[in-house]
Amino acid sequence: MAASAPISRTIYFGPFAHSTSLTTLEIEPQGAIGVDSNGVIRFVERNVSSLPALLSSLQTAKEEDWTDAKVVSIPNTTAGFFFPGFIDTHVHAPQHPNTGLFGKTTLLDWLQKYTFPMEASFSNASRAQRVYQNFVSRTLSHGTTTAAYYATIHVEATNTLAFICRERGQRALVGRVCMNSDLSPEYYRDKSVETSYADSKASIEYIRSLDPKGEIVKPIITPRFAPSCTPQCLSAMGQLAKETDAHIQTHISENKGEIELVKSLFPDSESYAQVYDTHGLLTDKTILAHCVYLGADERKLILARKSKISHCPASNTAITSGCAPIRSLLDEGHTIGLGTDVSGGFSPSILENVRQAIWVSRHLCIQTDSEAVKLSTEEALYLATRGGAAVVGMQDKVGGFEVGKEWDAQMISLGPVAEDGNETGEFEDGPVDVFGWESWPDKVEKWVYSGDDRNTVAVWVRGRLVHETIRYPYYREGSEYDLPSDTTP
Amino acid sequence: MAASAPISRTIYFGPFAHSTSLTTLEIEPQGAIGVDSNGVIRFVERNVSSLPALLSSLQTAKEEDWTDAKVVSIPNTTAGFFFPGFIDTHVHAPQHPNTGLFGKTTLLDWLQKYTFPMEASFSNASRAQRVYQNFVSRTLSHGTTTAAYYATIHVEATNTLAFICRERGQRALVGRVCMNSDLSPEYYRDKSVETSYADSKASIEYIRSLDPKGEIVKPIITPRFAPSCTPQCLSAMGQLAKETDAHIQTHISENKGEIELVKSLFPDSESYAQVYDTHGLLTDKTILAHCVYLGADERKLILARKSKISHCPASNTAITSGCAPIRSLLDEGHTIGLGTDVSGGFSPSILENVRQAIWVSRHLCIQTDSEAVKLSTEEALYLATRGGAAVVGMQDKVGGFEVGKEWDAQMISLGPVAEDGNETGEFEDGPVDVFGWESWPDKVEKWVYSGDDRNTVAVWVRGRLVHETIRYPYYREGSEYDLPSDTTP
Repeated sequence: MAASAPISRTIYFGPFAHSTSLTTLEIEPQGAIGVDSNGVIRFVERNVSSLPALLSSLQTAKEEDWTDAKVVSIPNTTAGFFFPGFIDTHVHAPQHPNTGLFGKTTLLDWLQKYTFPMEASFSNASRAQRVYQNFVSRTLSHGTTTAAYYATIHVEATNTLAFICRERGQRALVGRVCMNSDLSPEYYRDKSVETSYADSKASIEYIRSLDPKGEIVKPIITPRFAPSCTPQCLSAMGQLAKETDAHIQTHISENKGEIELVKSLFPDSESYAQVYDTHGLLTDKTILAHCVYLGADERKLILARKSKISHCPASNTAITSGCAPIRSLLDEGHTIGLGTDVSGGFSPSILENVRQAIWVSRHLCIQTDSEAVKLSTEEALYLATRGGAAVVGMQDKVGGFEVGKEWDAQMISLGPVAEDGNETGEFEDGPVDVFGWESWPDKVEKWVYSGDDRNTVAVWVRGRLVHETIRYPYYREGSEYDLPSDTTP
Repeated sequence: MAASAPISRTIYFGPFAHSTSLTTLEIEPQGAIGVDSNGVIRFVERNVSSLPALLSSLQTAKEEDWTDAKVVSIPNTTAGFFFPGFIDTHVHAPQHPNTGLFGKTTLLDWLQKYTFPMEASFSNASRAQRVYQNFVSRTLSHGTTTAAYYATIHVEATNTLAFICRERGQRALVGRVCMNSDLSPEYYRDKSVETSYADSKASIEYIRSLDPKGEIVKPIITPRFAPSCTPQCLSAMGQLAKETDAHIQTHISENKGEIELVKSLFPDSESYAQVYDTHGLLTDKTILAHCVYLGADERKLILARKSKISHCPASNTAITSGCAPIRSLLDEGHTIGLGTDVSGGFSPSILENVRQAIWVSRHLCIQTDSEAVKLSTEEALYLATRGGAAVVGMQDKVGGFEVGKEWDAQMISLGPVAEDGNETGEFEDGPVDVFGWESWPDKVEKWVYSGDDRNTVAVWVRGRLVHETIRYPYYREGSEYDLPSDTTP
């Protein structure tokens, strides 16, 4: 299994940036991060003047010999840096072909018109193979090193997605979607509660057999959302969660019509959150997507259960769901990450959702005339990395650069503006223009607000290279540029 | 002058799409558009089965011989099409290096912190040359064939921008910014009303000497906004407009603090719009950027004066200005286009602003619970092309494909998904994934919601090629692929 095969010890040499708290982004222009043959960070050095100086200080101070380590260095140290991989806490892989298609629909008609027909087609194994391979390529190219995926109701296609993630080396929670109520068309729903339970269990077992230690892929129990499941089905999923100690993901409080529907379907429940709690689905391993209109009691309940929140700003804007009150949820102590929610969301990029989280917070500010609700760039980047890591239960492993964490990272490269101003009209280095006089915080902001996948030139998970663009050699072994074949997954 | 030199007659062969009304987008899968040696469209044919059939029908039906014309054909006719060039009705070229930098500021502190220091630096001619060359390359690469540019207060740098636009063949209104009040720092404002008048006039005369017929570049009188100008200065600009019959551009009603400031600075005026009207600045050649909080009387006044509106949704969101009520402005009969408003706006792309216009309208829908305020994809594309053309007074020349209009167009190419799902992680054709089963409206929507400059593979203004990516040959002369050197500007 490529994703756990030993790799060469490697020093990642050059500027790096990562969140150190919700409000603080550390930018270190002269960094060096040592990663061992298991992909674990062994040192994080700052103010490093040169590679020989680093190697000698490691020998002196730590009695460690890193002279035979590979070196991966930032080629353009004035406009490139390492950044933690992004974590997508809510994304529907089978909806990828519908990205950008929603017209003027909102949640409930969008599901019927676009989503269910597309998902149903994943009974076709070759379609699943092609779309999932394509989507994992896409999300990796955007620097997504971990994703919490919804698949479809089909066990085979769900397992295909998990297999592809493991092969490609992308960390993933992969969930067979469970839905048995007649909200869904007859052609696309579980035939019975027994089927729901058995199929979800079968997929959990397959994924655990694929990756027994859960190093790359793990299963996640995925009741679509309350209106898609009968109470018996929700109970069966709660039961399954108990038996398997698996993660859980579902949707909550996304859209006003949906909330009314839940009230009518579950008249005995005090709230939408209560529906899940009653059925054993609010655990500290539960990811709740959206949380746009939660009541005060629901927020308290979710906090008490230590369930996590996935904020999906692009989706909430595109299908006109609403503006999730992220500032007050953060103030209350909720654990929050970002989700692309493809294809309610129109982009597989978490960087785009960093921007969208900021726009949504500004629209809340416009609505409420309160400056306090605005998210800063630093806060949105925190949600995209450390926040997301906590949502998927990997806060000890990924999300930032510290000794003991694993090397899930992307190399960002920003294009310098030529002296002639790029008169030829060629922009091979992507959409960000760096003139040379910018401060480091300005360069990072330029990436955040105008960058895209072209700026993510290499991506690693657990120290293994999982994506790279082929524009230029950025590897250096000793003093030679060299593409190390054994780090290719 | 390259931009007016004769070119070869050319047939643009393949699918095309354009707005035929505010709510209708025509998509013709089998099109052919003939452009004469002046860059003017001579025929627009539909349902064309083949090139020989077209040529013979032209000969029979119109007695026209196009057999010796060049042919530019869409290489991938299942996922490529011609589309009108975009029109950016409000953009500050010197702020380009600040793109993405605004932090948590809003209009008035943003001007002081970011904008004025950057603009002041354009006293340096080599900076102006580099930044403007770079920015024109960027906007062309995003398919912007016409732009209404604000420059800075410097005559020389303003003229440099106009010169570059003419050389590169991008249609432009170019305005020297006029500002003499003490809102601006002493280091960056006109020294007196006389300077304001003389410098603005000097730039107008230069630009008219550069392009006497105004085929590519025209001057535009540019009082920054009311708080930047004393009443005497505004009057001088009104006087200059009268004397020169030039276009006018300014800002209005962008931000609540700004509106209060205008009230306090112009206590005798009934409204912000009234300030401009009093000084002769509301004409049918005036472009008013933003219009977020206009009162009913102001809207009526603007309509009566036939002044035009530039909607800048990305900017209004990014610096938390507000949501312009575009639906009701359209219903009242206003003429509206889109503006990127770089660098209040964080992107030089009108396509991004098509999306942002839709997001802003959805946020208005969320705020007001009225579905009616939503803009459709078709409407936003209309604003980006025909709407913009009317705003800059070029509705008879550009914005759509009809006989008699000039060929301002972009070739859009969407990437097909490989059968293996792009397992290698390479996406050379850009960010849009076309699986092959999509309808034409779906393909266009995919471009609108997930496309970027990578999908704009060639751009023409007046039939002259002004931008191209170099990935593949899309020219065909007779049956040969051939890059026609004489169409390069």
